[in-house]
Amino acid sequence: MNTHIKSVELAKAYRLLNHGPTVLVSAQYEHEENVMTAAWACALELVPAKVSVVLDKSTKTRKLVEKSGYFILQVPTLKQLKLVQQLGSISQFNDPEKLTHCHTSLFQFEGFDLPAVEGCAAWLICELIPEPHNQQAHDLFIAKVVAAYADDRVFRDGHWYYHEAPAEWKSLHHVAGGHYYTIGDAVDANILE
Amino acid sequence: MNTHIKSVELAKAYRLLNHGPTVLVSAQYEHEENVMTAAWACALELVPAKVSVVLDKSTKTRKLVEKSGYFILQVPTLKQLKLVQQLGSISQFNDPEKLTHCHTSLFQFEGFDLPAVEGCAAWLICELIPEPHNQQAHDLFIAKVVAAYADDRVFRDGHWYYHEAPAEWKSLHHVAGGHYYTIGDAVDANILE
Repeated sequence: MNTHIKSVELAKAYRLLNHGPTVLVSAQYEHEENVMTAAWACALELVPAKVSVVLDKSTKTRKLVEKSGYFILQVPTLKQLKLVQQLGSISQFNDPEKLTHCHTSLFQFEGFDLPAVEGCAAWLICELIPEPHNQQAHDLFIAKVVAAYADDRVFRDGHWYYHEAPAEWKSLHHVAGGHYYTIGDAVDANILE
Repeated sequence: MNTHIKSVELAKAYRLLNHGPTVLVSAQYEHEENVMTAAWACALELVPAKVSVVLDKSTKTRKLVEKSGYFILQVPTLKQLKLVQQLGSISQFNDPEKLTHCHTSLFQFEGFDLPAVEGCAAWLICELIPEPHNQQAHDLFIAKVVAAYADDRVFRDGHWYYHEAPAEWKSLHHVAGGHYYTIGDAVDANILE
């Protein structure tokens, strides 16, 4: 595993999502694995760390999450723009070789039988809290974060360093139809007093 | 009302939140009104447009939402950084004059008895879908968007123009402790083919 990947304290895992990046959701069940793009992921609780993510009924990844009870939310970077767009446009139901065709490089974190996407800035390993009503009525999946990791070239000591890292590390924020914004400049409200 | 404020088609209301900005949540019940900052707001459905937002049990705004069944999610701008930070730091339970002390300028959209914050880039008028379990167990409030508006200097024809508007219009993305990032550059995945 990339030696830059470091564990993130669970009490600070929310900071990996707090700025609202578009994420990649990955899941595995037995020999099937998939990755999809999602803009509707959000922190839900600080301690214990929880998250929510919307997974449409048409997606293969949702089926894998329903069967396995686990998924990873990962924060991709500007360098991965094409991958992010393709993983959000192609369904594995239509293209069983989706991951290969998108040139998706996967690895595993020790102790978790889950596909993690190489090159991301952060990863949240999530254990589903089954909520049939939310899943059926709202496509909303709630999960407990059981482990979190980040690449120390862009997140370390509980803080993002987007403003110091090369631009290729910036998070992506999808608006619609393949149009994204990257994260921008750091601003500090504490200096305004 | 500011003549730059234009109605946004409900089917495109999700685009106002899709890039994950930190928002202001405002609510009113009888003669009480309040505004708070929230980083955990997210689109939930395209049509009918729905959103989710986490409102902690300690907040006054939550009480007003529970009583009235309505709230506004609004997208503030870099120019409002100090306001955003203060509205997220001070509770009306501790300072009944919070809105005055924060210099909060409010207005109303015709037909809605709700306090809207002047100077924001976009506003989503939300009608609560009561979900006692989500509200109690997760502090999660789900709502239907009944009207949406944006300032045409930064959002028009269904698209954000952060990349063309002056920097003071940029959205804010809170990480923690008063540290924010603004939204950055536009990137288009469609030109990568």
